[in-house]
Amino acid sequence: MAKEGADMTEETQFMIDTNPGKEPEHVESSGDAKEMRAVVLAGFGGLNKLRVTKKAMPEPQDGEVKIRVKACGLNFLDLMVRQGSIDNPPKLPIVPGFECSGIVESVGENTAGFEIGDRVMAFVNYNAWAEVVCTPADFVYKMPEEMSFAEAAAFSLNFVAAYMMLFEVANLREGMSVLVHSAGGGVGQAVAQLCSTVPNVTVFGIASCSKHAAIRESVTHLFDRNVDYMQEVQKISPEGVDIVLDCLCGENTAKGLTLLRPLGTYILYGASNMVTGETKSFFSFAKSWWQVEKVNPIKLYEENKVIAGFSLLNLLFKHGKCNLVKSVMDKLLCLFDQKKIKPVVDSLWALEEVKEAMQRIHDRGNVGKLILDVEKSPTPLMASDSTETSEAGEEEEEPEGDNDSKERMPFIH
Amino acid sequence: MAKEGADMTEETQFMIDTNPGKEPEHVESSGDAKEMRAVVLAGFGGLNKLRVTKKAMPEPQDGEVKIRVKACGLNFLDLMVRQGSIDNPPKLPIVPGFECSGIVESVGENTAGFEIGDRVMAFVNYNAWAEVVCTPADFVYKMPEEMSFAEAAAFSLNFVAAYMMLFEVANLREGMSVLVHSAGGGVGQAVAQLCSTVPNVTVFGIASCSKHAAIRESVTHLFDRNVDYMQEVQKISPEGVDIVLDCLCGENTAKGLTLLRPLGTYILYGASNMVTGETKSFFSFAKSWWQVEKVNPIKLYEENKVIAGFSLLNLLFKHGKCNLVKSVMDKLLCLFDQKKIKPVVDSLWALEEVKEAMQRIHDRGNVGKLILDVEKSPTPLMASDSTETSEAGEEEEEPEGDNDSKERMPFIH
Repeated sequence: MAKEGADMTEETQFMIDTNPGKEPEHVESSGDAKEMRAVVLAGFGGLNKLRVTKKAMPEPQDGEVKIRVKACGLNFLDLMVRQGSIDNPPKLPIVPGFECSGIVESVGENTAGFEIGDRVMAFVNYNAWAEVVCTPADFVYKMPEEMSFAEAAAFSLNFVAAYMMLFEVANLREGMSVLVHSAGGGVGQAVAQLCSTVPNVTVFGIASCSKHAAIRESVTHLFDRNVDYMQEVQKISPEGVDIVLDCLCGENTAKGLTLLRPLGTYILYGASNMVTGETKSFFSFAKSWWQVEKVNPIKLYEENKVIAGFSLLNLLFKHGKCNLVKSVMDKLLCLFDQKKIKPVVDSLWALEEVKEAMQRIHDRGNVGKLILDVEKSPTPLMASDSTETSEAGEEEEEPEGDNDSKERMPFIH
Repeated sequence: MAKEGADMTEETQFMIDTNPGKEPEHVESSGDAKEMRAVVLAGFGGLNKLRVTKKAMPEPQDGEVKIRVKACGLNFLDLMVRQGSIDNPPKLPIVPGFECSGIVESVGENTAGFEIGDRVMAFVNYNAWAEVVCTPADFVYKMPEEMSFAEAAAFSLNFVAAYMMLFEVANLREGMSVLVHSAGGGVGQAVAQLCSTVPNVTVFGIASCSKHAAIRESVTHLFDRNVDYMQEVQKISPEGVDIVLDCLCGENTAKGLTLLRPLGTYILYGASNMVTGETKSFFSFAKSWWQVEKVNPIKLYEENKVIAGFSLLNLLFKHGKCNLVKSVMDKLLCLFDQKKIKPVVDSLWALEEVKEAMQRIHDRGNVGKLILDVEKSPTPLMASDSTETSEAGEEEEEPEGDNDSKERMPFIH
């Protein structure tokens, strides 16, 4: 797998030099209160397209909530946005990021339900990776008191997506079986936890070997993503599985459909296989579109199978389903209160460390969610010797080589 | 649409001549008790491939129930079997038919749950259109006392299929909308009734104009199958519908997917558009397979849509889901006891009238289910002047021309 370490040294240096560990208080009390720090994507491509810069602070419009951001979620989709490997890529420059948590700083006209000081988590149609963000109140949810900002930023997208796929699209019930790819990722861990709230559900998880020790307890059966998982699953469950959750696409689509038992549901919720290198030169969205094997409805009829696609962001921002998502969030917060689910945070990163964070998710090094902690300063080790990161990135041949980096990253397991 | 009246005269004459209105008692008490009447399909093709002949009576094997048949269901699928327009067509000759009702005459070894004299309905993997049938006890269900044999033969396949599509595959809930093709057919009417058991469900029905008067009350909105129903549905429900049930295939697949609202489910449960004439010369299964537009999983992902196939017979006879079907049947019999659902019988036909019955379902003349009544004699009018049927079949240019035939058919509405 290609590494994204190239050109990182200079950029990292630049980012840190121009943003010498500012505390949020400094920003708030600085001379120009209308500016904020934000990650900006200047062009589609590699890591060097990302910079932390000052931007004009947004003000809430009608129906919007202005949030002082504490933590942001980083998802695989953000890599695809960076590469432009998505349908209808946005006009650049933009501030990436689709979810955050923080404190309500003000509300726009005709905005009901929120007050200044409320601790909230929110979906944003881009713009999340900044010190301040404005988003319609329809996409904002109050946080439970027991939830940290990092947990909240790890909660919304992963748990809502996992819940809706399992219970809205596929109708998970007692005794069923679920196969989930990227079982160690944010959605994968949410799926595993939600499955455990239903009696007698078997979870087949697929993940890189390096994650197995950390996630073994969360699933029933665990397979290496590099082995022939089909054969392994069929050995254990010759009839197949009830639900397949696939964020990879490509050859896994046909495999997933084959593994389904009658009346089973395959759900495609991402296409991370499109990203094989730093840039989209090899796999653009259009190319992937044509390379995915298409499905004949008559085959589904013969085999009694179901195939579904699920994109939470499209559901929210294109398809106007915010009320449905709100009702799902209410159910999830109940489960959180009952301590039946709890977001898994992999690691916290300063805005200035967004490239290293992206490299980690690209290398499938994470267990759970990567969080951009807006108040965090880049770790001293990286600031003092940023070339080490770059070299590590270039030298690492195996995904298992994460032990080195653990020493310089503040992990939360 | 091509008519199937050709060559019918001679065949009908033949069938009636060789089977002069035998009462079942005559058969039972006849010299050779080991013979029975049955409809036999001798070759794939037109109506002239069907005959009523004497056959050796089957005896129940291990785990089987032997049923003295009273009524059989006739489905569109039986036309496709006759034409050989299905995947893996059976070796000929066979006795067609997948469902019947009757009285248990004996049981095989190791057959639990049934006693001689039980009134039952059953699924059969072919062989239903006969005076006697044997089938595994897993596919046999006791009939409620209030249910007639004709109703029972109209119940099993249509209501189980409708229920499983709405509640197992698509998860119908309060406030949803359902579009159903062939709303006047057996499954269509079952769908309409089951939708009425859920609060506030909107049903869009599509049917030939000739059926509108009879089924108007059963659905919320009714459209002519010959008009652009997409535009009409979008006018009423710009957001689309939650569930599309399609037994036609062809161009309706793409239309159905387009009409879905986000998170909506399109279910293909038949491909009757494959049958356009008397024989399969124009549309074979293989040809249809390639002509159906295939679906790109990434498109489903972008649009948050679900596409499913449903074949109850494959589920039962290939996929081993008889326990699930049994549990569905239990729920349906509860609904029947509560008088919330009731099978709609279109008409009763003698075994010797199977061609006329098939012509009627081919012409989409039926409202509800066509039943082969094993104890019925061919109607005197047809026996005395069978050429009239043939001529009517050839002259009828419009589906609305059913009023003529009503006079010579014993309708039950």
